[in-house]
Amino acid sequence: MGANGYCVAVAGATGAVGEVMLRVLEERKFPVRRLKPLASARSVGKTVTFCGEAVTVEELGPGSFAGVDVALFSAGASRSKEFAPAAWKAGAVVVDNSSAFRMEPDVPLVVPEINPHAIAEYTTRGIIANPNCTTIVTLMAVAPLHRYSRVRRMVASSYQAVSGAGAKALEELKQQIRAWAAGEPLVVEAFPYQIAFNVLPHIDSFLENGYTKEEMKLVNETRKILEDPGVLVSPTTVRVPVFTAHSVSVYVETEAKIGVAKARELFATFPGLQVLDDPGRKQYPMPLLAAGQDDCYVGRIREDLAVPNGLNFWVVGDQLRKGAALNAVQIAEILIERYL
Amino acid sequence: MGANGYCVAVAGATGAVGEVMLRVLEERKFPVRRLKPLASARSVGKTVTFCGEAVTVEELGPGSFAGVDVALFSAGASRSKEFAPAAWKAGAVVVDNSSAFRMEPDVPLVVPEINPHAIAEYTTRGIIANPNCTTIVTLMAVAPLHRYSRVRRMVASSYQAVSGAGAKALEELKQQIRAWAAGEPLVVEAFPYQIAFNVLPHIDSFLENGYTKEEMKLVNETRKILEDPGVLVSPTTVRVPVFTAHSVSVYVETEAKIGVAKARELFATFPGLQVLDDPGRKQYPMPLLAAGQDDCYVGRIREDLAVPNGLNFWVVGDQLRKGAALNAVQIAEILIERYL
Repeated sequence: MGANGYCVAVAGATGAVGEVMLRVLEERKFPVRRLKPLASARSVGKTVTFCGEAVTVEELGPGSFAGVDVALFSAGASRSKEFAPAAWKAGAVVVDNSSAFRMEPDVPLVVPEINPHAIAEYTTRGIIANPNCTTIVTLMAVAPLHRYSRVRRMVASSYQAVSGAGAKALEELKQQIRAWAAGEPLVVEAFPYQIAFNVLPHIDSFLENGYTKEEMKLVNETRKILEDPGVLVSPTTVRVPVFTAHSVSVYVETEAKIGVAKARELFATFPGLQVLDDPGRKQYPMPLLAAGQDDCYVGRIREDLAVPNGLNFWVVGDQLRKGAALNAVQIAEILIERYL
Repeated sequence: MGANGYCVAVAGATGAVGEVMLRVLEERKFPVRRLKPLASARSVGKTVTFCGEAVTVEELGPGSFAGVDVALFSAGASRSKEFAPAAWKAGAVVVDNSSAFRMEPDVPLVVPEINPHAIAEYTTRGIIANPNCTTIVTLMAVAPLHRYSRVRRMVASSYQAVSGAGAKALEELKQQIRAWAAGEPLVVEAFPYQIAFNVLPHIDSFLENGYTKEEMKLVNETRKILEDPGVLVSPTTVRVPVFTAHSVSVYVETEAKIGVAKARELFATFPGLQVLDDPGRKQYPMPLLAAGQDDCYVGRIREDLAVPNGLNFWVVGDQLRKGAALNAVQIAEILIERYL
């Protein structure tokens, strides 16, 4: 690096994840020499605040990346597909929060606590993919078990927050709540049905096999991140009327029996994961507790009643932080430290 | 029966389930000659409305059951333990919605669509137990599969409505929502933590093995109702900020492969269960849709990606109706039709 740090572009700087990216870069004192906030034409001229200064948003385009060292993308899959190759051509390494490149064999898909070594493979395409939010939160608890004894299969049901669907979706829940309290009719636009006081077993679009894209991300990304194509995953992803932080009810079956005591030890010593599991004192993870936190929380750790090598647990994490912005910045930290 | 119908007592007539019991008795034109609403001392003198008439609430006591033919109990387990034997001694058959007698070997535990024949066993103790609400909703979808090919195991994660915790809990969510909209502090009393915009992996009290009582009800009652002590159940029960209707994400593994088409047929022909499973048209069960309905709804029917004999689905039902009051009245209907 130059003695003064790196030029960092944030594509999608005005979105829900982009804004958290700016905060995480500040909090972690990422060595930013120059920040380039990029967004679509309609946000041009707006400013974002970074380290106490107002920085003007520029239009995301093929010419945005001259002189940029690291480009954090969170502007949707089509923007990533369109502009990530141009960024790399201009010399910027891309950390992409969209689903555009995650399953490309020559693009690493990384959770820094789990497979940081994969970052080295960025050199072919110049892109490192940030996994799906639910996948990150789930694997923060599954990975330490898998490292100890291979996870043969996993059944996961999620309880996902509305902010995972973007700033508009978050606002829609708030508006529905306000309307309900005022006795006014509720407006439904961002979600297919009312989300206030409801639960939607529908996240992202449906595929031929009856699963949603969100569910198949959990299946396929899990295998890639754990570097084990044999892990069997049965996913059900569900939206709940929570503002921030995804929760996941997980059953795993491992090759050897782990047991609750050992699992707790494996969880407790894994970086970025905190054990909160004292039912007698009503201590267990909840979204209200995980929102705004960098760590994920695991609890309700129970030996399965049916399968000797089975474990059940409950993991919760802020999907905007560890599930998106924080994970991307952590990738960028390893990238500059080891490779740039 | 007398030509004019039966004398029916409702113990807990002023509670959340008791009130729905009165409505269900009316709707189904249960042959009530005389209604005796019973409740604790503090509700004495209140009236309930039944078939357009105000009926005065009497205090629940050992002397309440003279002349009563059928006593529907929904006043909590301790009241059931205290007064159900007295009711039977006085000649009333008890349909008990509490957990007090469910696992007693000489008390039948009945979902009328699944094991109506068990009602015949009421003669020993004079009690027929109504199952746990989440168990009923889950089994309304699991039973038709089990009948076709034995369900070897089941992994279930629930999304349970606040009214399942009683009228006070329902009011607490409403108050928290109103307080949030008004920018006022939220009061937490009925639940251990704020339930608005949150998710609590904690229903009923915790047991030594780390599971909650609610979770163990799903395990044990499933085996008793399906009359198959070998069914293996991995349960996680969770409270969500929904007013009414419980949802359950279910994975089942059957002895023979069933497949989606056959499962759909088995579901569609099962009484009290409706298939709502057309993802392309965004048709799937949701609590807002099931609330107030007698039927349970099943959808998101998917072949498991991992296990050839595995199926995933999503079932939703109104836990005050099919999960409690309706199921109890259905039991009483069979009782009077076949046995009284």
